[in-house]
Amino acid sequence: MRTGIWLIGARGSVAVTALIGAAALRARLVDATGCVTELPPLRAAPLPAWSDLVFGGHDVVTLPLLKKAETLAAAGVVPGRLVTALADELGRTEQELRPLPSGDTQAETAGRIADDLRDFRDRHGLDRVVVLNVATTEPVVAEHPAHGSLDALRAALGEAGTVLPPSSLVAYAAFEAGCSFVDFTPSTGARLPALAELAARAGVPYAGNDGKTGETLVKSVLAPMFALRNLRVTSWSGLNLLGGGDGANLADPAANAAKVASKQRVLGDALGYQPEGTSRIDYVAEIGDFKTAWDLITFSGFLGTGMRMEFSWHGCDSALAAPLVLDLARLTAAAHRDGRRGALPELGFFFKDPLGDGPSALAAQWDALTGFAAGLTR
Amino acid sequence: MRTGIWLIGARGSVAVTALIGAAALRARLVDATGCVTELPPLRAAPLPAWSDLVFGGHDVVTLPLLKKAETLAAAGVVPGRLVTALADELGRTEQELRPLPSGDTQAETAGRIADDLRDFRDRHGLDRVVVLNVATTEPVVAEHPAHGSLDALRAALGEAGTVLPPSSLVAYAAFEAGCSFVDFTPSTGARLPALAELAARAGVPYAGNDGKTGETLVKSVLAPMFALRNLRVTSWSGLNLLGGGDGANLADPAANAAKVASKQRVLGDALGYQPEGTSRIDYVAEIGDFKTAWDLITFSGFLGTGMRMEFSWHGCDSALAAPLVLDLARLTAAAHRDGRRGALPELGFFFKDPLGDGPSALAAQWDALTGFAAGLTR
Amino acid sequence: MRTGIWLIGARGSVAVTALIGAAALRARLVDATGCVTELPPLRAAPLPAWSDLVFGGHDVVTLPLLKKAETLAAAGVVPGRLVTALADELGRTEQELRPLPSGDTQAETAGRIADDLRDFRDRHGLDRVVVLNVATTEPVVAEHPAHGSLDALRAALGEAGTVLPPSSLVAYAAFEAGCSFVDFTPSTGARLPALAELAARAGVPYAGNDGKTGETLVKSVLAPMFALRNLRVTSWSGLNLLGGGDGANLADPAANAAKVASKQRVLGDALGYQPEGTSRIDYVAEIGDFKTAWDLITFSGFLGTGMRMEFSWHGCDSALAAPLVLDLARLTAAAHRDGRRGALPELGFFFKDPLGDGPSALAAQWDALTGFAAGLTR
Amino acid sequence: MRTGIWLIGARGSVAVTALIGAAALRARLVDATGCVTELPPLRAAPLPAWSDLVFGGHDVVTLPLLKKAETLAAAGVVPGRLVTALADELGRTEQELRPLPSGDTQAETAGRIADDLRDFRDRHGLDRVVVLNVATTEPVVAEHPAHGSLDALRAALGEAGTVLPPSSLVAYAAFEAGCSFVDFTPSTGARLPALAELAARAGVPYAGNDGKTGETLVKSVLAPMFALRNLRVTSWSGLNLLGGGDGANLADPAANAAKVASKQRVLGDALGYQPEGTSRIDYVAEIGDFKTAWDLITFSGFLGTGMRMEFSWHGCDSALAAPLVLDLARLTAAAHRDGRRGALPELGFFFKDPLGDGPSALAAQWDALTGFAAGLTR
Ligand SMILES: NC(=O)c1ccc[n+]([C@@H]2O[C@H](COP(=O)([O-])OP(=O)(O)OC[C@H]3O[C@@H](n4cnc5c(N)ncnc54)[C@H](O)[C@@H]3O)[C@@H](O)[C@H]2O)c1
Ligand SMILES: NC(=O)c1ccc[n+]([C@@H]2O[C@H](COP(=O)([O-])OP(=O)(O)OC[C@H]3O[C@@H](n4cnc5c(N)ncnc54)[C@H](O)[C@@H]3O)[C@@H](O)[C@H]2O)c1
Ligand SMILES: NC(=O)c1ccc[n+]([C@@H]2O[C@H](COP(=O)([O-])OP(=O)(O)OC[C@H]3O[C@@H](n4cnc5c(N)ncnc54)[C@H](O)[C@@H]3O)[C@@H](O)[C@H]2O)c1
Ligand SMILES: NC(=O)c1ccc[n+]([C@@H]2O[C@H](COP(=O)([O-])OP(=O)(O)OC[C@H]3O[C@@H](n4cnc5c(N)ncnc54)[C@H](O)[C@@H]3O)[C@@H](O)[C@H]2O)c1
Ligand code: NA
Ligand code: NA
Repeated sequence: MRTGIWLIGARGSVAVTALIGAAALRARLVDATGCVTELPPLRAAPLPAWSDLVFGGHDVVTLPLLKKAETLAAAGVVPGRLVTALADELGRTEQELRPLPSGDTQAETAGRIADDLRDFRDRHGLDRVVVLNVATTEPVVAEHPAHGSLDALRAALGEAGTVLPPSSLVAYAAFEAGCSFVDFTPSTGARLPALAELAARAGVPYAGNDGKTGETLVKSVLAPMFALRNLRVTSWSGLNLLGGGDGANLADPAANAAKVASKQRVLGDALGYQPEGTSRIDYVAEIGDFKTAWDLITFSGFLGTGMRMEFSWHGCDSALAAPLVLDLARLTAAAHRDGRRGALPELGFFFKDPLGDGPSALAAQWDALTGFAAGLTR
Repeated sequence: MRTGIWLIGARGSVAVTALIGAAALRARLVDATGCVTELPPLRAAPLPAWSDLVFGGHDVVTLPLLKKAETLAAAGVVPGRLVTALADELGRTEQELRPLPSGDTQAETAGRIADDLRDFRDRHGLDRVVVLNVATTEPVVAEHPAHGSLDALRAALGEAGTVLPPSSLVAYAAFEAGCSFVDFTPSTGARLPALAELAARAGVPYAGNDGKTGETLVKSVLAPMFALRNLRVTSWSGLNLLGGGDGANLADPAANAAKVASKQRVLGDALGYQPEGTSRIDYVAEIGDFKTAWDLITFSGFLGTGMRMEFSWHGCDSALAAPLVLDLARLTAAAHRDGRRGALPELGFFFKDPLGDGPSALAAQWDALTGFAAGLTR
Repeated sequence: MRTGIWLIGARGSVAVTALIGAAALRARLVDATGCVTELPPLRAAPLPAWSDLVFGGHDVVTLPLLKKAETLAAAGVVPGRLVTALADELGRTEQELRPLPSGDTQAETAGRIADDLRDFRDRHGLDRVVVLNVATTEPVVAEHPAHGSLDALRAALGEAGTVLPPSSLVAYAAFEAGCSFVDFTPSTGARLPALAELAARAGVPYAGNDGKTGETLVKSVLAPMFALRNLRVTSWSGLNLLGGGDGANLADPAANAAKVASKQRVLGDALGYQPEGTSRIDYVAEIGDFKTAWDLITFSGFLGTGMRMEFSWHGCDSALAAPLVLDLARLTAAAHRDGRRGALPELGFFFKDPLGDGPSALAAQWDALTGFAAGLTR
Repeated sequence: MRTGIWLIGARGSVAVTALIGAAALRARLVDATGCVTELPPLRAAPLPAWSDLVFGGHDVVTLPLLKKAETLAAAGVVPGRLVTALADELGRTEQELRPLPSGDTQAETAGRIADDLRDFRDRHGLDRVVVLNVATTEPVVAEHPAHGSLDALRAALGEAGTVLPPSSLVAYAAFEAGCSFVDFTPSTGARLPALAELAARAGVPYAGNDGKTGETLVKSVLAPMFALRNLRVTSWSGLNLLGGGDGANLADPAANAAKVASKQRVLGDALGYQPEGTSRIDYVAEIGDFKTAWDLITFSGFLGTGMRMEFSWHGCDSALAAPLVLDLARLTAAAHRDGRRGALPELGFFFKDPLGDGPSALAAQWDALTGFAAGLTR
């Protein structure tokens, strides 16, 4: 089951950490800590092996992979010894990266992206390709009439002007090329009726949105805890401090808004009501990839007694995200092989804002995920 | 289904909070926040109604209930207005409390305890009685050969000397009187082969041990979170600062040891290995009932990257425990009515150190609990 | 030394807590915890006694003092027993409160405010009156040419339109009436060249701005600690979560901006450079007066090693502010009696953003304060 | 002013970090962050220059300096590039290290230690030598009659058996050899009447005890903050989690007791009363040198309102200690040259448990230190 993973944003922190990690796993230089697909119930599923994976991708910058890898090592995100040991392998992947193409109309751009995907598949004789978006988070996008149906969309794309944000154009191109699509970012991606229509016609699955790696992961277990004990959460406020490329982009209010909405949704879902409070994201260059999130939760219990809980999370975002990116690629490829088409709500375990209306509590999402894996045809 | 709840330690903080709460619920002065049996899936189960419950109990001190209630109000554990409104009701319950009896041998003591239980049941025409231990935590108890079988135990109890710790003697008496038993403390209670034998013969169920209300509750959702993400917890250390009667008792190293062991167990169960670190309990009179627990968790992720999480929990122990005491009484009475005998592992949701070998992750315990409730005969 | 204290915002939380506290101190119902002027080196200074103080004030709302006091008791800010014991006394102070007057021009308004002040002084035969601003924080104010000189200001005030924000108009009226002025808020107050000129001519002192009671107080000792150890603070970020009237007002971005600027200033002063990071204020109604602030400080030490510190502060804002309000009134009255005119930089100990360019480290501010007190004529 | 620094425990983490740092400063590879003697008011004092310092020392283990340096680099305590750049320099210092000598009586042992010190001074033509104890913390030591006077001590040392703990024997030898002595550990060191007598006779100064680098440093500014605001600290509890050699040793209850006592002293001194609570130290190997301390402070303010503060400190102990070790050596050498003899209470700024009865608030200690530096003869 030779499987291609095509990374959008392939020169970014998450992508390069995933590339180093996949190479290190293949070379048996590390164990699979952080990879959910290596846990007992999923390990048995018929997923592509580490050695079956081939990587390529698009980016809008040209920083060499090796340079980026060295920066990640200096920041403590990946061990320096791995970068040294895997330099050749990274050099080979470098050959598979392409600048994000651009045409006169969005239809033309999409066509060129799809060509790159088909070339990649053919060049390596791949059974299928998963397109995985780990590019910079986009600002929230204005609605457009052409988003509503595939015919309208096709017509609009052929004209001058911008109809789709980059993440959705990539999803469009992926589906056209017969590839599945995973959106690890809060961007729009495949979340438009026209694209759902296209995925269904093309017979490909997709998953998203926004990888759940830090504060929201913790929320997805704490909020159900309060709910199961019938404790009333009266407020939940948070502050995320982070640097790095993702942080710098989130300093932009528009991108920030997209992310923040995605971060509070789990509370309403898990509790059945939306408690007071917001979750903020502040860019602090100095803090780099090792982000700190602090949350204060006030709640009331029996007879109205008020109580509180605080937590601080000091996580390395890219180290948390990268193994999930690999997990998602393996699972989506398997779903594709199995003939699944359209949204994959069973992968909600991985996302802050999952497609479909599956459960938001982590434990319930885990049950959905293991059920999905158990159902895959061998 | 008139149900008696006989509290061992009936003049303590947890007990009196539970008494005030039950009276307030019956009088519809409060909602049922904190009561798990009022959540949708359990609310439908055939449990005794709030108005079916009758309270009595033993204690070794004589502090009037109303005095204790006023102290709890002054400390912010219960609202003062409830104490005022329910003073008469508390006065009536006062009449149902008895000093813990004592005889020349433990057999004699147990006989008198059982007599008090039978009197209570007869006096109020109760269908059944749940004996619920919320007394001071005992020191860890030395093994004794008579713990191994009911015959040996019966023989030994008839002689001078101490064979059973108070909590186990109470369980013995409860079973002899045909009552079910719940141990909300880390004391030995019913956890002896001889008592398991007796419960089976007497046809009564029992549950325990050690109510899960604070730091351990949080552990029971965070530890599975790390496990489900295949993150390796490298250390987990905690400090619990608390005052109150329970805190004062835990300042005694022997009682402390019992509690601390009970608090780390969940980690090994949920993670599959025991991470470094201990959970300490320190008595700080000033802090009173609003205990503060702080935990530091270090963990490693993909490619060995080290990360950490901290949390502080500021909970009011009695306000967290009291509704669970009521839940446990309702559930155990229903099990008894349904003919269940022996340990009730399905109630592990409520305990730090559950009887039987059920799951330790809160979500899985919830599934077991709702399954149990759904299976109760109407 | 009969001394009047005229509170602007007299029906607010800080004001009413101060009124209850002053009455309780006079009645010897409480000790002077929280009052800096009762510490040994200041206690010896020739300040007005508690029994010398007479209270009055302006507000724009009409909520009765006793109602407000009961609200504060219900929220745990002041003990209920004090409100009960001091109800009569609060009733007497109620008679001394006036609605904030208003005229056709700002000159006329100021005239009426000054009249209220003179009436108060005469009615009670007071030696002097301190006007103390504890009203709602105002938005940052646009510059106006008339702010630059007293002549220009007088001319402009006589015409229609708004020249001064309310806090500055009050300062103007106070000076005209021969009263000293203290600004406990971040509003503009006396911080305009024209008002400095007026205070000098009127021969009255003034102090401000913005009482230092929580996060900034902690900063004023932690920032010097890093500086004295030659540790480089690389970022300092904070989030303040609070409800109450002050919090609701700070939910307004303009008022928020005034406060936030005032909160970071201490860092640049104490460290000699401005570290990255901001201090945010978020309104969370549920949290009420017991505000929570969380700060994350990253710093680097010997050979560049990176480290971090976090703190959470759970303070009751009004309980922290009220004793300082009383301290400031006593100290400013003594300065006035001693013939001091103009700004009092020696009171920088009390403020986030002190007038003049005194030290910003708390210990150095304390030295300045005790020096000032020691220099007061007996 | 060629100055020798003789480190007891020269192969430990603090010592080797100091050695690397001093070499890096001399080679101008780093700036002096963390060095207090490089702050403006001290920088002007007549202290030995970085290039005047020569290092040697004793240890009981033989692990090569370079190996230890590499371990520190791998743990992130020092930058790897410095270890590479300074390998030759570390090789030269390696030649100056000696195994801790041992004789048949303690007098003989002391004689050999003194010989090593004199050899070192002569070999390098040093003006004077500071002996600096950074060895493993010793258990608290039993009193002995010979500790009371120099004559009794001399007599006792000549006999078989142990009269002095290792740290005190080293102080004895240092004084005999005409060297000054600094104790950076909580061990007994020079704190015995007999040794005070000897230092006075030998005309040498000494300083100590127990470097103040983390939790206690923070206490030394926060406790005065509460005191200056007349806030009553009702409890102060802490937990220190650390690994490393120092942590492993502190897992021993006897050594732990010495350290813990030293950590709470500052509170009583700064507040004027000892609040409830203890400060614990737990060994967690996994945490290594980057220790985490958490403190909970409860306090009451105006009218008895209860509040609380928490902090977490994540510091690298050796990186915090090493520059202070260098500062102390420079300052003590200058005091020695200036003819100071006996204890140096003006260096209390650096210690948890300073000799003499100087102030315990950091700001006041800073004033004492700068006064001392200003008084040094040029
Ligand atoms: N790390 C986490 O824990 C985590 C969790 C959830 C979501 N995410 C999301 O993953 C994404 C990547 O994060 P990162 O830390 O790697 O960010 P990054 O800034 O390091 O990398 C983003 C990369 O995307 C490239 N890019 C930008 N626009 C592009 C486009 N239109 N087409 C192709 N490439 C483009 C950039 O040049 C850059 O190389 C972000 O959107 C982030 O919000 C990350
Ligand atoms: N509050 C919680 O969150 C929580 C959680 C888990 C377990 N627990 C356990 O619940 C128990 C009660 O806690 P609390 O805060 O009410 O303590 P408490 O000290 O207020 O009350 C204990 C009561 O038990 C009585 N008692 C002591 N020995 C007795 C005996 N042999 N027979 C009968 N009564 C006896 C005491 O006189 C006292 O009235 C403790 O064992 C505690 O560890 C509490
Ligand atoms: N509590 C603290 O720790 C603290 C610290 C520093 C500064 N402050 C400042 O103290 C002030 C008072 O805080 P609070 O918590 O009492 O707020 P609050 O909202 O409870 O009270 C403010 C009062 O001012 C009145 N007011 C509004 N505009 C007025 C005007 N123009 N003239 C007269 N009265 C007016 C309001 O009606 C209200 O009664 C705020 O500006 C706050 O920022 C408080
Ligand atoms: N790092 C800090 O922030 C800090 C602060 C205050 C005090 N201290 C104290 O500094 C000391 C050193 O700490 P560390 O982290 O370097 O510990 P470490 O364990 O890394 O080093 C101690 C060294 O002392 C050596 N040693 C033991 N007994 C000896 C003896 N009798 N004579 C000579 N050498 C001996 C050991 O072999 C070891 O090499 C400890 O006592 C610690 O408590 C450290
Ligand atoms: Na905290
Ligand atoms: Na924290």
